[in-house]
Parts: sequence; C-alpha cells; structure tokens
Amino acid sequence: MPTKTAVKKPAATSRKPRNKYIPGQYVYAFGEAYGLGKPLLGGKGAGLAEMAHIGIRIPDGFTITTEACTLYYDSGRKITKGLEKQIKDGIKALEERTGKTFGKGPKPLLVSVRSGARVSMPGMMDTIHNLGLNDETVEALAKQSGKERFAYDCYRRFILMFTNIAKGHPRTEMDKMLDEIKEAKGIKNDFDVEVEDLKVLIKKYKEYYLKTFGEEFPADPKEQLMTAVKAIFRSWDNERANLYRKMNNIPYSWGTAVNVQMMAFGNMNQNSGTGVGFTRQPTDGQNHIFAEYLIEAQGEDVVAGIRTPLHIDALKEQQPKIYNQLVTSAKKLEKHYKDMQDFEFTVEDGKLYFLQTRNGKRTGVAGLQVATDMVKEGLIDEKDALLRVDPRSLDQLLHPTFVEAAEKKAVVIGHGNAAGPGAAVGHIVFTADEAMKIANKDKKAQLILVRAETSPEDLGGMVAAQGVLTMRGGMTSHAAVVARQIGKTCITGCSEIKVNEEAKTMELGGHVYHEGDIISINGSTGTIYDGAIETKEGGDNKNFVKVLNWADKYARIKVFANADTPEEAHNAIRFGARGIGLCRTEHMFRGKDRLFIMQQMILSDTTEERVKYLEQLEKFQEEDFYKMYMALGGGVNLNVRLLDPPLDEYLPIKEEDIVELAKESKKPVETVKARIEQLHMTNPMMGLRGCRLDVVYPEIGRMQAEAVIKAALRAEKDLSEKAGKKVHITASLMVPQVIAEKEFVFVKKLVSEVADKIIAESDYDKKLKYVVGTMIETPRAALTGGEIGKEAAYFSYGTNDLTQFTYGFSRNDYSAFINQYLDNNLIDFDPFKTIDADAVKRLIALSVKEGKEANPDLHCGICGEAGGDPESIAIFHAAGIDYVSCSPFRVPGARLAAAQAQIREEGYKY
Amino acid sequence: MPTKTAVKKPAATSRKPRNKYIPGQYVYAFGEAYGLGKPLLGGKGAGLAEMAHIGIRIPDGFTITTEACTLYYDSGRKITKGLEKQIKDGIKALEERTGKTFGKGPKPLLVSVRSGARVSMPGMMDTIHNLGLNDETVEALAKQSGKERFAYDCYRRFILMFTNIAKGHPRTEMDKMLDEIKEAKGIKNDFDVEVEDLKVLIKKYKEYYLKTFGEEFPADPKEQLMTAVKAIFRSWDNERANLYRKMNNIPYSWGTAVNVQMMAFGNMNQNSGTGVGFTRQPTDGQNHIFAEYLIEAQGEDVVAGIRTPLHIDALKEQQPKIYNQLVTSAKKLEKHYKDMQDFEFTVEDGKLYFLQTRNGKRTGVAGLQVATDMVKEGLIDEKDALLRVDPRSLDQLLHPTFVEAAEKKAVVIGHGNAAGPGAAVGHIVFTADEAMKIANKDKKAQLILVRAETSPEDLGGMVAAQGVLTMRGGMTSHAAVVARQIGKTCITGCSEIKVNEEAKTMELGGHVYHEGDIISINGSTGTIYDGAIETKEGGDNKNFVKVLNWADKYARIKVFANADTPEEAHNAIRFGARGIGLCRTEHMFRGKDRLFIMQQMILSDTTEERVKYLEQLEKFQEEDFYKMYMALGGGVNLNVRLLDPPLDEYLPIKEEDIVELAKESKKPVETVKARIEQLHMTNPMMGLRGCRLDVVYPEIGRMQAEAVIKAALRAEKDLSEKAGKKVHITASLMVPQVIAEKEFVFVKKLVSEVADKIIAESDYDKKLKYVVGTMIETPRAALTGGEIGKEAAYFSYGTNDLTQFTYGFSRNDYSAFINQYLDNNLIDFDPFKTIDADAVKRLIALSVKEGKEANPDLHCGICGEAGGDPESIAIFHAAGIDYVSCSPFRVPGARLAAAQAQIREEGYKY
Repeated sequence: MPTKTAVKKPAATSRKPRNKYIPGQYVYAFGEAYGLGKPLLGGKGAGLAEMAHIGIRIPDGFTITTEACTLYYDSGRKITKGLEKQIKDGIKALEERTGKTFGKGPKPLLVSVRSGARVSMPGMMDTIHNLGLNDETVEALAKQSGKERFAYDCYRRFILMFTNIAKGHPRTEMDKMLDEIKEAKGIKNDFDVEVEDLKVLIKKYKEYYLKTFGEEFPADPKEQLMTAVKAIFRSWDNERANLYRKMNNIPYSWGTAVNVQMMAFGNMNQNSGTGVGFTRQPTDGQNHIFAEYLIEAQGEDVVAGIRTPLHIDALKEQQPKIYNQLVTSAKKLEKHYKDMQDFEFTVEDGKLYFLQTRNGKRTGVAGLQVATDMVKEGLIDEKDALLRVDPRSLDQLLHPTFVEAAEKKAVVIGHGNAAGPGAAVGHIVFTADEAMKIANKDKKAQLILVRAETSPEDLGGMVAAQGVLTMRGGMTSHAAVVARQIGKTCITGCSEIKVNEEAKTMELGGHVYHEGDIISINGSTGTIYDGAIETKEGGDNKNFVKVLNWADKYARIKVFANADTPEEAHNAIRFGARGIGLCRTEHMFRGKDRLFIMQQMILSDTTEERVKYLEQLEKFQEEDFYKMYMALGGGVNLNVRLLDPPLDEYLPIKEEDIVELAKESKKPVETVKARIEQLHMTNPMMGLRGCRLDVVYPEIGRMQAEAVIKAALRAEKDLSEKAGKKVHITASLMVPQVIAEKEFVFVKKLVSEVADKIIAESDYDKKLKYVVGTMIETPRAALTGGEIGKEAAYFSYGTNDLTQFTYGFSRNDYSAFINQYLDNNLIDFDPFKTIDADAVKRLIALSVKEGKEANPDLHCGICGEAGGDPESIAIFHAAGIDYVSCSPFRVPGARLAAAQAQIREEGYKY
Repeated sequence: MPTKTAVKKPAATSRKPRNKYIPGQYVYAFGEAYGLGKPLLGGKGAGLAEMAHIGIRIPDGFTITTEACTLYYDSGRKITKGLEKQIKDGIKALEERTGKTFGKGPKPLLVSVRSGARVSMPGMMDTIHNLGLNDETVEALAKQSGKERFAYDCYRRFILMFTNIAKGHPRTEMDKMLDEIKEAKGIKNDFDVEVEDLKVLIKKYKEYYLKTFGEEFPADPKEQLMTAVKAIFRSWDNERANLYRKMNNIPYSWGTAVNVQMMAFGNMNQNSGTGVGFTRQPTDGQNHIFAEYLIEAQGEDVVAGIRTPLHIDALKEQQPKIYNQLVTSAKKLEKHYKDMQDFEFTVEDGKLYFLQTRNGKRTGVAGLQVATDMVKEGLIDEKDALLRVDPRSLDQLLHPTFVEAAEKKAVVIGHGNAAGPGAAVGHIVFTADEAMKIANKDKKAQLILVRAETSPEDLGGMVAAQGVLTMRGGMTSHAAVVARQIGKTCITGCSEIKVNEEAKTMELGGHVYHEGDIISINGSTGTIYDGAIETKEGGDNKNFVKVLNWADKYARIKVFANADTPEEAHNAIRFGARGIGLCRTEHMFRGKDRLFIMQQMILSDTTEERVKYLEQLEKFQEEDFYKMYMALGGGVNLNVRLLDPPLDEYLPIKEEDIVELAKESKKPVETVKARIEQLHMTNPMMGLRGCRLDVVYPEIGRMQAEAVIKAALRAEKDLSEKAGKKVHITASLMVPQVIAEKEFVFVKKLVSEVADKIIAESDYDKKLKYVVGTMIETPRAALTGGEIGKEAAYFSYGTNDLTQFTYGFSRNDYSAFINQYLDNNLIDFDPFKTIDADAVKRLIALSVKEGKEANPDLHCGICGEAGGDPESIAIFHAAGIDYVSCSPFRVPGARLAAAQAQIREEGYKY
C-alpha cells in the first residue's frame, strides 16, 4: 500500500514563481498547478501544468494528485467523501472555464481521463476518451458539431473503452459486433459505418454491458468519472504495473495521479487529426523534429496501428500552418524544458492542441548527441548535459546489441534478471567443461552456457561462452558478478527453465532445447529469445569521451575498477578507471597448474607442510601481481585483497574427485574426506573465511604479502627501466571480513613484518611504499569504524556482504523469496541491485564519519557490486564515500553517475 | 597486548579520603595506595593498601601497578628506564621505612615478590620468597637472627624458587640434589638437613644455574628483583593464564600488578608459622573463623602439602594470643570489607602479620548464607547482599553436583565448553535412537549421549539421556541451547574426542571407550572424567528464596523464561519467571505423529494441498498451546514465535530416508529429491526462514495464528471455570527474522485477520486480547527500529542471530576459529557467551531508543541465549532493555543479575 509519506514537498522546475501546494488539496486545475512537480502531479499532469504556464495551447482540465491515490489505498481502496467533493468541484470549475456542461447540452463537456504516474509506466490504465457522453449529450454533441455520425462514433468508442478499460472487460465480443455490422453491410473501414448502424451498435453494446455486469451502462457522467478514477487508482496495483516497477526500481509508494481533460476531437473532420512527435530524432539525436500524424483520428487510432500515419514532412505539405505551429511549439517546449521532448498533439478543426509532453526516451547514442548539441547551442551547460544522459545507457555503447527490428520480431521464450548487459547469440551448452572443449576446438564458436547456477569452477566455461544463462541467483550472484567483470552478457534467475541433465535438454517457453540449439539473450533487459537474432557491435563515439571528460571534471567520487587479470586491468584503464579498487586473489589459485598445489596446501597436516606448498604458490601469485602492475603501468592504485573464500571451495565434492585427489596426494581417502568434512561450513558465508583464514593460518597472509611486495618491487624496476625515469608504486593490501580493530591490527602486523623485511632486503627500492586497508563487510566493522579507522589506510565497503549480513539474506539463497518481497511491496528494491538507502547506508555513513574523525587521512570507498549502480552511487555520495570501484564495463556509467550525484547536490535538477 | 586504556580512574572502596592517583606513577607504597582500587593495584595490592589503612599489621612494601604491566607490553616487552627508576626508588623508600638495607647487612632487606591481577588468577607466576639474599646477606641474616641454619635454608629456597619460578626452569634436578643429600645422610625431613649440607647444596644449585643459563646466579638483589618483575609481567601472557582468562571472561587488557613486600619469616622458629583462613566457613557459610596453620614454615610449605596443617582450634590452644589477634583482625577485615574474607597470615617469632586478604570464594549455599546472615547482623543491607551472591552459583542449587572429594580423585580425560551446568554419570551411547531405545526399556537407565554435534532430530535422545557430550559447537550450539532449556548437563566442543562410528567406540584422554562404558561429565566446569563419580542432588534452600525475593524487589529488568513444553513452562514459573518470553514452535512438528504430516505439507505442490496438511497440523499446534496456557494458569505472558527454521530441516538427508519418504508420500523419488534440492539453502542461517516463510507461504502463519488464538480461547474458558472467576489471557505472536517495517506489517496483518475472525466467531470471549511483536535479529531490524517500533507491541532481541549477523560468524562454524581469536586476544570474549558490549550493544541500545521514541508503549526484551548470562544482563540493563527471557534453569541467576545491574547503577559496589 502506498504510504502517507509518499509525496514530499514538491520541487520547483523553474525559477519563476510556482503555484502553492496546499496540504489536503487533491485536485488542481492545470492552470493553477505550475511548479508543483511530478511527485504530486505525475508526469502528464506536471507537463500539462507547465504547458499551460508557458502558453502552449492545451485542452483545459485538472489533475487529481498522487496523494489522492495514496489516500485511496489508505482508506481501504475507497474514494473518501472529501476527495469525491473535490473532484466534483473540479468539474464544476472546468464547466465554468469552458462554458460547457458536464452531462448536458447544448454544449456538453466531454473529457478524457488518463493515468499519470511520476514516471511513464506501461501497465497502467489506458486513456478513456469522450467521457460524459450519454443518450442526451450525444445528441447535443451532434447538434453542436453538426455531425451526427461523429457524435455517435464518439459515443460508441466511449462505451467500448469504458467497458474495456474502466471495467476491465475484454473487448473481443464488442469488436465482433462491429465486425458483424461491417460484414453485413460489406464495409471495410470503421469510418464507413453509417450513423444508423452506429446507433444499433450502441444499443447492442449497452445490452451486452447489462448482461455482463448486471447493471445498466452508467448514464450519469459523474458516476462514469468516479468509476474511471477508481479504475486508474486500482491499476497502480495491477500485475503488469507491479512487474514493471520491480524491473525498473520504481517504489510502490509513489502512486499515480489522474488527469481529467476536456476533449479535443481529432476525429471531428478532415481538418482534424492527432499525432505524436519528438523535438529531435530519438535514435541518433539529430536536431530536427520527428513526428507522425493521422488525419481525422483519435489517439487510440494511432496506437491501434490500423492506418499508417503520415510522416511529419507530409503534414508540412498538407497543413503548413499546423506544421509551423508544431515546430514553434516544439522549440518552445525544448527551450522551457531544456531537453528533447516527446509530445502528443491533436488538431481539432484546424486548431492545434498539445495533449502531453515529456522528456523523450532516446538511445544511448542519441542521448550523448542531444546533450553535447544542446551545450553547443547554449541551451544548457555541461552540468545540465551530464544529467541528461542515462548512466545505464552507456553500457549499450560498450557491448553488442540486437538490431532493434530483428529483436522485435523474435520469439520471447523467457525472462530473468538483466545481470550482464549486451546481446549474445549462441549454441546451448550445459557444462563449463563442454564450453571449454568446444571453444578450444573452434575459437569462433558462439556459445550460451546454461547452468542452474555457476560456481568458481565454471569460470573457464564462462570465459569460453558468449553469454551465460542461469536458473537461480539475482543481480549479484556468482554468475552475475563474474559476467559483468569479464564483460559477458548474462541473465540470471530464470526460474522457468527446466533442465534435464541426463538428456542434456532444457525446457523453456514451451520449447525443448537440446545441447547445440541456438538461443539469443538480451542481458540488458533480461529477455531470452528463440533462435538467432542479428546483432550490431558497440562502437566508438566521440560524444562518449567528451561527456565522460565533463563527468570527471565535476565528480567528487572517483571511480576505480575491480580487476583480477591483466586483461581486465587494461580494460579498466581504457574505460577511465583511476586504478584497481579490488583485485581478488581467489581465482588465481584455480589454474590447472595451481589448483593441485592449493589443494595440497589445504590438506597439509602441519604448518611446515603448508608453508612448503605456499612457497610454490607464492611464485605464481608474484607473477600474477607483477603482470597486473605492468598492465597498470605504475602510479596507479592496485588494492590486493587477501584470500577471502572458505578453503573447502578448492576441494572436490564428488566422491570420484575426492578419490582421485587422495590418490594424487598420496593420502588415504579417509584422511582427505576427514579434512574436507573438517573444513566444511554449514554457513560458508559466515564461516572460516576472509581474514579469519589469516588468523588461523598466518602463513597464508604472509605468503600473499610476500608475493605482492616482491611483484611491486620487480614491476617498479622494470617500469622505470622502460620509462627511462623513476616510476613509483604504492603496494596495497586489503584485509577482508574484518570484525574488530585488534583483529585488523593482527593481520596488518602479520603482513607488515613480511613487507618490511622484503623491502629492507631489496637491492632496488628500500623505500617502497605500501599501505594496509580493510574491507568493511560486517555490520560490526561498520559499527566499530571509529576504532578500526585509527589503524587502517582505507575502508573499502564490500556492499554485497554488508547487505547480506545486515539483512540476514544470503545471496545464494534469497532468490527463494525476493520476488514475493518485491511483489508484496515489502521492500522497494532488490538490495543487491541498489544499496539499501536506510540501514546499509546508515552503517556506511556512520562508519565513514567515525572513521574519518579517528583518522582524517582515511579513504573510504566501495568495492561491492553496488559500486557500479547509478542509484547506489548517489547514495554513496550522500554517505560521504570518496571512491567507488566496479566491473570495468560499468566504469563509464559510474563516472557519469558520480558526476550527477555531485551536480544534483549543487542544486541542478532534471 | 594490553592496551593503554586498560586502567581507568580507580574507584573508591570506602567513603574515607583515598590516596591520590598520579598519572605516570607506577609504584605506590602500601601505605600510600589506599583507595586506588583493584584495576590499578591488582587484588593483592589493593588488599594490602586497605589493611595498611585500617591498621592491620602487614609487612611493609609497595605495589608496581597494572599500568606498569601495560607499559611493559607497549614498550615491546621491556621495562622502561623510568619504570626501573621508580622501582628502585620504591626499594630505597622501603629501606628507609624499615631501617633495613637491600643487598647489605647488618640488617638485610629481604622481600617477597608476588603477582597480583585484578582478580585472582591461576597460572600467574607464584611467589618468590627471600629475594635479596646472596652470599653476603645470608651471613648478615644468620647473624641478625642468630640462626645460621634458618638463613641458609632461606637462601637455598630462594635459589630454587628463583630458578624455578622467575627463570621458568623445572625444579626436578634441584629437588634430586636435596634428595641425594638426605639419602646420603639418612635424613627424612627437609628441616633435618644441617647447615653445612645446605651450604654444599647452595653451591651445587649455583653450579647448576651457571650450567643451565650460561651465567652466574645473580648476586645483585636489584638484578634479582628486575628479573622477577619481568617474569611476572611475562606470566600474564602464558598459556595457562590465557586459558583461564578465556574460560572466565577476563580481558587480556587488564594486566597484572606486582607486590614487593618485606619478608616475614614463618620459618624463623617454633614461635613462627604461616597459615590461610576464611572469616566464615566457605562451604556452608556458617559464621565462625576457619583456618589452617603450619608451625615453622614458609608459605610454599602449606601449598606443597608435605606436612598436615593444624586446624585453627589447635592454634587456639597452642597460641591463644595469636588466635585472639587473628579473630579480632578477621572481624575487623569483615567489617571493613563487608564481606567474608580469605586471608593469608604469617607469625614471625610471635608477631602476627597479614599477607593478603580478599573476598573469599564460597559455594552457592555458603554465598546465600553469608549474604543473608550479614544482613541479619546489620553489616550490610539487602542491596549489598545481592551483590555478594554470584548469579552463576545459583545453578549449583538447581542441579546435581559431584561430591567434591570424589571429583578430586577422579581421572580427568578431557575438557570442553561448560554448556549445561550440573553433573551427570552414565553409559555412553552414540545415537539418539539408541538412547531412546534404552530409556524406553529401562526408565532408570543413566546415559551420556556422545555426538559430533546435535541437530533437532536428536532431541528425543537428549531428553532420554542424563548428559550430552559433543565434539563440536560452542556455548550456543544446538546441543548447548537445548540442554540448558531442558535442564540437562552438557559439555560441547570437546574436539579431542575421536569417534569411530562403525566400531561404536570413542577415544578420549588415551582411553578407548565402547558403547555402554561409563563416564562422568561436569557441565559446570566442562571437565570429563573416566568412570562414575558420586553425585549429590541440588536441594531446596530458604536463603535462595529470600535472596531472590530481594532481587525481584530491586531489579528493573524483569525475567521471563524460554519454554517450549508445558513441563518447561512449569519449571519456568517455579524458578520465578514472570512469563514465557519465547515459545519456539519448531520442535512441535517433530513428534512421530506430526513429522510426516509436516513433510507432506512441505512437499505439497499447491497451496491447496499445503493448506490441507496445515489443517491437520493446526490441531496438534492448538493442543500444544492449550497445554502451555493451562500450565501457565492465565494472567501470564506466552510469546509464541512463528515457525523459524528453513523447511528443509524437516526433510531427510540420507538416500534411504528420502526413498522411504517418497514411498510413504506416494510421490516419485525424483520429485521428492527435486523439492529437497529446491529448498536446500547454501547458507541456511540466511535463507528462506523466519517470517520469510510467512511471506512465501502465508498459509503457515495463518495456521499458527489460528492455533494460538483457538488455544487461548479454550484455555481462558477452562481456566476460568476452574478458578471460578474470569481468567484473562493475552495471546502473543512473535514474528522472527524481521528486516523491515512493511514486512512486519504484512505478517501482522496476515495473523491479525485470522485472529480477528476467530475471536469474532468465538462464543466465549469476543474481546480476547492479542498482541503481535517482533524479534530483532537482523542488524537491519535494529537499524530501522524507529520504523518497526511504530507497528510492534514489543521487540524481542534474538541475540544469537543478531550476533551472528553483526559479526558474520555462524554459530555452527565459528568453533573453527574462535579459539585462535581468544588466544590471540583479538576479541575479549566469546560473543555468543557474553553479549558484545560494543557493536551488538550499540545496535540494541539504538533500536530500543528509537523504537521507544516512535512508540512509548514498546516493550523491549531479550530472548536469545545471552538473556541468561549475568555479564550480558548488565549490558542489557545499560542498553535500556525491559526484560530478559532465558532457559528455566537460568531464571534465578538472571533475576539476581538483573537486580545487581540496577543496584550497581545506583552506585553500590562490590
């Protein structure tokens, strides 16, 4: 249920004096609503108020606010007496302003009723036109317009729409009635049906209504209106709306407004019509008007697509006056809104009305073009421009996408979480091994890896495939995190998939797919398609570079990247990361040559034995870090996180694998099993992991410190030689899963002793700098940040784990209930997608504050998945965070979001 | 390492003016340390200062403070120049006051050096007597005392003790040297060895010292002293001390003080001696002095137990003057300390010195006797008395204990966590089934159930056994929680046990035990013994009742109990619980007749099917709750927690069990397996559990609400009939694992709709009251307590889960690292034993405050395990908690602890 706090004080959209918000007033005429803002008026209502204000001609009317919707739900889904009175008073005032009468001739007031939420939302109730018609007023309309057929056509349309939309009844039977008449008369087009036939049809419609609902079609326009308003409020809570909100992070609490507006008749005569347009080209962003127009039609005819609309150039030729008015008004709107507009208009007997305006949706390419053009035109400044680009749209520019027309035609077979952006087409494989086998044989093989969920063992297969599709997991499941990290298209949590492992088939969308069958997945929308869809590559774009340079100029938060390999590090720098905020070391032990040594280390009985294997691993680690440093080229940050996962992740699970490992290890199977059992965690997320490993096995932390410092020294030397001048590296070790200051100090001391010794013994640089920072991932670390901060060089918030522990939700398991939480509006967002702005933010803000009080040099950053999420970045900005670190492909979006947070803080709005 | 903040401003122990604490002063003469308190002076030092102040004769000396110990560790285990100077100045001043000279005749100053931590701690370094002796001063001592043999015996003892204690070298070889001389001379007793032989022995000792340490035995008394002081500081960090601290929740940061005291020679002549005593009888608390005395002996002779000491009555006859002095001083001490004292004394040539005094350890029975007697005597008031009883000691009075002498003689075979107090003797069984089978055959069978760890399936076996012993798990593992709940003796986490499941044997303490062999376990100490030990029952005690009535009078926090069965509820009320703060419902589904229905419910494919089985379960639940209400008798609280654990806990794991369940369920094995797989949680603690279950399966919450309300109505009726007057019940439902206000409201609405309907339909009481409260178990719930509090009747903190999530430590897994954390002083306490006074307390205090601000009627309580822990109760008191709820057997201790928290807040000290 929307809560009472849904609507805050409305924000001004211009510097001109705005109308006054009056608490308890739920109905505002368009002319008295200027500046009350979208949260109160909804998008459509706000647009109409703005247009009224700047003198664009609109049909008069009023908005019933989103607060009325909240009131409706708070009152047990009822319209209160008070609200009903305000709506009726609104009608009365509209009658006075228009000189028309609601429900009476000679000049009957007819209205359209439309929903209008804060953002445009599919699934909400459609428009009802011609409300106010009944057997009396239809006659008056006929008289007034002099066109009886037009009046009765309006009436017919109204009954149909009211039944279908306001009462939610399918239109099939009523459409059939019209078809029967047309068939009987041998007529093809609706507008050829004659008035007498329309009258017969209207009678039939009404009989049908009576039969269906057990009551007469309401003749009282006020009853018509109240029913329509209620239907709109109700539609806020329908299934499709809820799904859309969930997918788009729109809080349930916002509610929808309702706009009641005098009809303008695009279907009155040949000198009338209706259309939609953009002030600039929405695909490429070029600066010319783009619109489509239907002569003698009402809005729904355009949507229905029965007749092909005219291109705007045709209008220019046929009705040059209207065309010129349209261009002038469009420019006026753009100047007012300082943004490209998407508008609807109607021409009634040669008179142009605007029905709606809103900021136009555009492609990523167009967004950059419009923003940079408008700066060039002097319409907006750079900061305005930055707010006009959607950070998420930048992904489109880095990944292949489907050719739009081809995607539209493709057969949808399922949906999941849009976990890794881009488009991928490929042959289904069910195991990582198979994927690697095929990719090894055929480098060009296109593969989609389908798994119940992925685990670290699947990494090779994910690299080999073009796309990854999983049955379980959310936006921060293993598959999602890794896919974004390595830039693969990925959809997670498609629970509809049924895999038959033995038969190597999967069932989805009513089809059975065999291994090798082709599917396509859109990782930006979460949609899965049958067969192959044509794709196009993401390309370079000079506006992209320009806009991101502006972003870096204004952002307070710096953007780093998470990278585990030299290739990822290279990508990160290419996309503008300032350094590597998180380098995970756990994947580094999974290589064929290393895993066995790692396993031997884990199976060791004594510290001595363990140290022996760690010495072997140290060589690999050192080489890994050396390559990372070389890829980064010095002067750039690289935060190496100490080993984090529970050790049993490296040991086999299956009986046969255990037997094999025992054989290779020359240990009894029982011994190996006992060790696996000993290391097994009931709740691995909260077990022996993170810096707990360094407390129990200090030799592991020592080995990693040695590898990092040795690699840094070697890279510093080689980079300096290459550059012909001294290149400086500051090594950085990051301690995961900290819970207390003393624990952090223990690990810091452990690694510092090793580091100091190696640096002291170095023959190259005895002054190599290194820092030791900590991850803040447990609520306890956040709550004692004032203590830990004294000792740490930086705080790096692991938002995934911090969210897990704060909620008590396991990322591996929460898909079992998260949809019910979103469907029932128990939480506004998936907390692993967008950071919790209440509790988790509170923990972050509190520890940033107390940490910095204890240590003014403390740097505070984010290296969890939320670090790349635009909404989350705004929250981090407000929490006092200094930097975020995210997957390389999310770096551009994060840079832009960081700038937007700063610019918004300065008072800029969009 | 002890931190610099270890010692706060010392607390006064009396209202008389106390000496001044001077920052940076590490050495205080006994006569200038009055009132500086134990945190600074340690227990012994504070006792000496007090005795000096009230005029009890003590040998003069000084205390090196605990701050000096901290300084020692902070300086890298070194005594700073400044500290060394202060110690030497302390000696100089002592020389001046005593007229003796350190390291020189004619009147050489000899001292004892003793450790003295804030609380008495075994494992710390023992006393070194006679320090200051060397080849010169021994002669002076001989001359001064006129007894050459005495002087050389002191010297011999000193070298032996210095080598053994200060240098930490075993005394075996040196004892052998003495034995050889005795053998050669045919002497039996040490005191028959002649002076010339002692001189030979001293020479041998010194040679041995040189050989062992490669340096001469130090002749310089100052060097002797500094070595001894350092040894004491070092001993704060030795293995035994660390173990003791861990077992007794003593923070590492406290450090130890050192007392340097002029020798009083109990071994000077037959008119000398040494002894220990209590001002009252420590076993039963009777008010008469109790002491033991050895003539012509030094302290270590008493400890060594070579000679049997005289009972105090013998002293009364032999040395009536000394006896009278002793009684007078003892009374004086009691009057000063207002508590029973445990003291040490020495008589040097007819002159009585006290060496030490401290509050005496006593049994639970004695503690109650002393406290109530002292109130009667007017020595203390009721509040003082309450502080003098140890809440943990009350457990002894409720459980059987071992006969002390028998336990002392028994063979210890292992140790674990003292998880469920009491003493148990029984035959080993390895499975719950076996335990139940035997108990069914023989109701009197005594059994000890030994398991790797227990799970809910083992409940029946735990009930059937007398004691439970597990290899894994801590103080809040399943075994521990359940054992305390049902009042069973329990030891957990004895990792030394090796069980061979096939052979049905276990290895422990070098023995192999077969099923049926007898062992004894002490659940109050965690010690495991071979064979059977005689036990005695816990009995009634009128002082117990008196003291607890006082406690209830003063406590602000109320005490409730956790109870899941009518029997437990009955126990709870018997032990003084005000009601049931937590009734878990999950065990109620485990009965033979119910589990199958529960499993069918879980395996259901549709809501309809699930509801069908839930209807069957509802009958059982209703009967369970009805019996609980009847046992409680109305007017008493019963908070029923909705189903909490993940559902797969009710499904089998083993292949054969799954096959059987499938057969019984008439479902394909694959289907059952798929459902188990679907419900399987990677991290069950953070998975689909708690109120998440009610969101996904609202029908479960509805069923439970129905059962509770129906039971309450029925019980209200039957109780009223029985009582012949209207008995009122307020039903209470508690929602577990809440994370957000909207979620809580969802579940509250769900259960309220059912409750309202049933109450409205009731023909008995249409006004039955019910409340819906919430568990605060996730950090998020605590951090949004201001929101949730608006809607909840009460907050019940589940401290186990709250601790788990705050730390990211799983209770099932933390035994893999917790010991390393305690050993390395990374945390002060096991956070599942005593509530974290930093982060977790902060979460509690913050949400209590914000919750009560939002809802002044909000009650805030604890129902996690920490609710029964005395230290934790003090923390909860400070956090503003209104009530705690704990296992029935812990209720008396909790009542006392609650009173103590309040009384301490009022400024009372003990």
